[in-house]
Amino acid sequence: MSYQAPVKDMLFCMTELAALDRIATLPGFEEAGIDTAQAVLEECARFNEGVIAPLNTEGDKHPSSWKDGAVTTTPGFKDAYRQYAEGGWQGLQHPADLGGQGLPKTIGAACIEISNSANLSFALCPLLTDGAIEALLTAGSEELRKTYLPRMVSGEWTGTMNLTEPQAGSDLSLVRSRAEPQSDGTYKIFGTKIFISYGEHDMAGNIVHLVLARVAGAPEGVKGISLFVVPKFMVGDDGSLGVRNDVHCVSIEHKLGIKASPTAVLQFGDHGGAVGYLVGQENRGLEYMFIMMNAARYAVGVQGIAVAERAYQKAVAYAKDRVQGRPVDGSLPGAGAIIHHPDVRRMLLTMRALTEGCRAMALTAASAYDTAHAHPDAQVRERAQAFYEFLVPLVKGYSTEASVEVASLGVQVHGGMGFIEETGAAQYLRDARILTIYEGTTAIQANDLVGRKTARDGGALAQAIAGEIEVTETALVRCDSEAAHAVAARLAAARHAFLDVVDFVAIRGKSDPNAVYAGSVPYLMLAGNLVAGWQLGRALLVAERKRIDSDDAEFMHQKIALARFYADHVLTRVPGLRDSIVDGARSVNHFVPEAF
Amino acid sequence: MSYQAPVKDMLFCMTELAALDRIATLPGFEEAGIDTAQAVLEECARFNEGVIAPLNTEGDKHPSSWKDGAVTTTPGFKDAYRQYAEGGWQGLQHPADLGGQGLPKTIGAACIEISNSANLSFALCPLLTDGAIEALLTAGSEELRKTYLPRMVSGEWTGTMNLTEPQAGSDLSLVRSRAEPQSDGTYKIFGTKIFISYGEHDMAGNIVHLVLARVAGAPEGVKGISLFVVPKFMVGDDGSLGVRNDVHCVSIEHKLGIKASPTAVLQFGDHGGAVGYLVGQENRGLEYMFIMMNAARYAVGVQGIAVAERAYQKAVAYAKDRVQGRPVDGSLPGAGAIIHHPDVRRMLLTMRALTEGCRAMALTAASAYDTAHAHPDAQVRERAQAFYEFLVPLVKGYSTEASVEVASLGVQVHGGMGFIEETGAAQYLRDARILTIYEGTTAIQANDLVGRKTARDGGALAQAIAGEIEVTETALVRCDSEAAHAVAARLAAARHAFLDVVDFVAIRGKSDPNAVYAGSVPYLMLAGNLVAGWQLGRALLVAERKRIDSDDAEFMHQKIALARFYADHVLTRVPGLRDSIVDGARSVNHFVPEAF
Repeated sequence: MSYQAPVKDMLFCMTELAALDRIATLPGFEEAGIDTAQAVLEECARFNEGVIAPLNTEGDKHPSSWKDGAVTTTPGFKDAYRQYAEGGWQGLQHPADLGGQGLPKTIGAACIEISNSANLSFALCPLLTDGAIEALLTAGSEELRKTYLPRMVSGEWTGTMNLTEPQAGSDLSLVRSRAEPQSDGTYKIFGTKIFISYGEHDMAGNIVHLVLARVAGAPEGVKGISLFVVPKFMVGDDGSLGVRNDVHCVSIEHKLGIKASPTAVLQFGDHGGAVGYLVGQENRGLEYMFIMMNAARYAVGVQGIAVAERAYQKAVAYAKDRVQGRPVDGSLPGAGAIIHHPDVRRMLLTMRALTEGCRAMALTAASAYDTAHAHPDAQVRERAQAFYEFLVPLVKGYSTEASVEVASLGVQVHGGMGFIEETGAAQYLRDARILTIYEGTTAIQANDLVGRKTARDGGALAQAIAGEIEVTETALVRCDSEAAHAVAARLAAARHAFLDVVDFVAIRGKSDPNAVYAGSVPYLMLAGNLVAGWQLGRALLVAERKRIDSDDAEFMHQKIALARFYADHVLTRVPGLRDSIVDGARSVNHFVPEAF
Repeated sequence: MSYQAPVKDMLFCMTELAALDRIATLPGFEEAGIDTAQAVLEECARFNEGVIAPLNTEGDKHPSSWKDGAVTTTPGFKDAYRQYAEGGWQGLQHPADLGGQGLPKTIGAACIEISNSANLSFALCPLLTDGAIEALLTAGSEELRKTYLPRMVSGEWTGTMNLTEPQAGSDLSLVRSRAEPQSDGTYKIFGTKIFISYGEHDMAGNIVHLVLARVAGAPEGVKGISLFVVPKFMVGDDGSLGVRNDVHCVSIEHKLGIKASPTAVLQFGDHGGAVGYLVGQENRGLEYMFIMMNAARYAVGVQGIAVAERAYQKAVAYAKDRVQGRPVDGSLPGAGAIIHHPDVRRMLLTMRALTEGCRAMALTAASAYDTAHAHPDAQVRERAQAFYEFLVPLVKGYSTEASVEVASLGVQVHGGMGFIEETGAAQYLRDARILTIYEGTTAIQANDLVGRKTARDGGALAQAIAGEIEVTETALVRCDSEAAHAVAARLAAARHAFLDVVDFVAIRGKSDPNAVYAGSVPYLMLAGNLVAGWQLGRALLVAERKRIDSDDAEFMHQKIALARFYADHVLTRVPGLRDSIVDGARSVNHFVPEAF
């Protein structure tokens, strides 16, 4: 089954939910209107459907391999990456003066979805390069920026994030890699980093590692961590590649999924020290890394949507093709395609509702990001930034948890064939399973949502968002549509549940952290569920307005029905989550560690 | 991490929830009291922990392999199977006059859990033999029984179920394999069967295939299917093995999980016809196969509990060992084991609550089965049989869906390590993923629950079960325990939701099947959730009574707290499911097949 990018739904989300027309009035984005969006998405679809998607199965069958320190990527990847770079895709969202196209995230995010639907393993490489570019743009010296950024933006070189060490995963305070200052202003880096995606590969001329390490004498904990650029090959003043730096890939992992993406163990400084260049100031490394990590977290959320979309398309194709069983309503004389069975449609619609809901949420968040970066009014920027930051853990946490559910349903739709690897449905489940883990597990996202995004301001922003949801409800109630009324009722119930939980988090956060954190992930799931459902509610309002005169009456009718499906089958999970959070902490905390 | 059979919890369930003392008063089970149960379980634990469990990773790394029609199982499997047979484990639940031990299912089911926790791939072979024995016991001629059963009960020969064909999976009416009557009373069988677990292997002297096929001239559909015994090797009158029969394994599948278990494509009759022996009467094959399938469905539910238990134990061990992050309540001066984090405990407790809830439900069902088979009073037998049959789709459907959730949480607890295959957590997820598919997908179980188990009697049995749940609620309310009151309230809410859905199914089942079947799987999940929670509520009542004087005060306290956890974190899903079922059909059925 070939992948077809959902360009139409993406353009609908951009124009109707993410206000692309307003984004296109912001300084720097004047050319990023709907016509540009459509042209870029169609070209992106063409390239990824044709070149990248066919390598997805290949990467699963023939993972990247390691020999004597070198990693050979899946056959076809190197050439595909060359085409990716030549097509200018790496620079899509990056500044024009560095060779990029300077497009808004609202458009860029959709392109990232397309490339990740095509091939999650492949697209992870540019995703990490994007993050490294962000970090250097924000915190790198003029010299570092000049040396590295143009070649990263062009895709000639790729970037990595080196955070994790065997003893330091979610808890970066435990990082032990060390950096010794040299007289020439550089540092020598020593240590072991694990789980480094594309930490070594053969697709690009150089690899720019961004590495967390401690300078001798730095404070304990996260306040003593600095960020360094450690290139695989040294770079001369003229930009030429020099000798190999002292960073080596000692092995790659044997993983459940995304097998084509090499996950490296990197050894720094076993032969005298790897040359590193300080990014920004000493001991502020975590702060800079968070720039990179926040970009990557958002993008991983989009990976979730991407793999969900691909799993959905495959399941639909199978359900239309596989003949088995007579429809329960007797509408066919004998056995029909399994899509005639209500339960198969329920599974497919659950997949689609989660995918489209998360896409709408992600593109709405991207629009806020663009506003926060380009709007001339500081207050508008600040509000948009706060809204974006509230949404990031939801885009990351909820979309990826949803992607595992969607991919698992995709297996189920295929029945016994789903369990056979050659079918391909199982690969999506295996691939998706990393997404709730890397770039911060769902629990880490939930900590962010609880601590920085909710408790810190006493729940004020969360309540303000609930206020906006209520505005949508009011519009739905006023709409002459049974579906709109049904959705409004579910949204209201979910919003009230959300407000209860926000109060619980804001009030109890300090006094009883064990109680609040016992419900942190359910809170994230509740909030993500609600915000995605809200976006589908907004979509319904648009569709009710457009369904009469539109050339796309059927598309609009489906938007209406899908919002209702989401309300009745997904938003219905919310009140129960509220109960688990508000009433459920006691039983969690009854079990002290010794009770297991 | 080594597996330790949860013998204590199993004995608690048997004695306190499944009335083993009453079972041991039934004719034939007089020796099956608590002492026997304990001795059998401890020996079963010893054997499986020591011999079978260590082969689990091995089977994943070195799956069974096919060459020239022969299947070589994972190194170690053949010898382990010999020990399994010699230990008499295959005969545990089978009649003493055939060489079995004649133990009740209430004890046998716990043993099946243990062997499947140890090694799902390995234990699948005896599980299928059990089913084949059941079918021959019930429907086989005296001669077939004499020829095959003693050697199957001893484990010398194994059995298979040959149902599926490329075009006939869930829909057996499409079976095309054919049987040609011969003058000597045998049949010649022709056709292709797929997905035949242990359809070919090297662990036993012979393989007894039970095969569905159509006799020439039989009616179309399921009423024209007959059941045949087709041995791999012909059996002489003296029981000696003769020539190879014309059934050949042409390939085995490359699967997501249970890789050690060979999944065969079997070709019957390519060299003149495979000799088959009719089981029972012509055209009643599906009826006989359902004997086998119902036994297997129950057992697959137990497989779900088994893999969930194993995943839970592994996750607990990791969570106690892995140091990462300071507890949010500041109870440790620095980083502690991750089990100190409330969200990790919430995940572990979700795993444990689902596992113990499903185990309690399965053992309660087993007790009903034993009563239905051995009670002297026909009315009691009939009531017990009806209760058992209501529970089978829940044990199969809910326990296996839960097992996927549990195994996926197990991966999540391990963080990045969970995605690395060497860790082993991912194998449980891959293995578990078949359980909601084989022996009838969750949707097939749900069809059974909706049609035969609920709509047929107008919901009467379901309502009677709700009445029993209400009795438990009343006892909980009368109990001087805050936890009991909390559980009673959640049970009551869930029971009311259940009754709403039962009404919906009973009333609308005929008039609007599309509406009812759009909610069939959510109904199964609701009912399974409720019945498992009910059993944990019953366990709480016992524990409240026993916690004072018991030597096991801590065990009893944990039973109480776990019931409350289940109530607040799992039963809370039920009201939302009710809403999806009762209000959610319209949006499912709005999407006609062409709308995808």
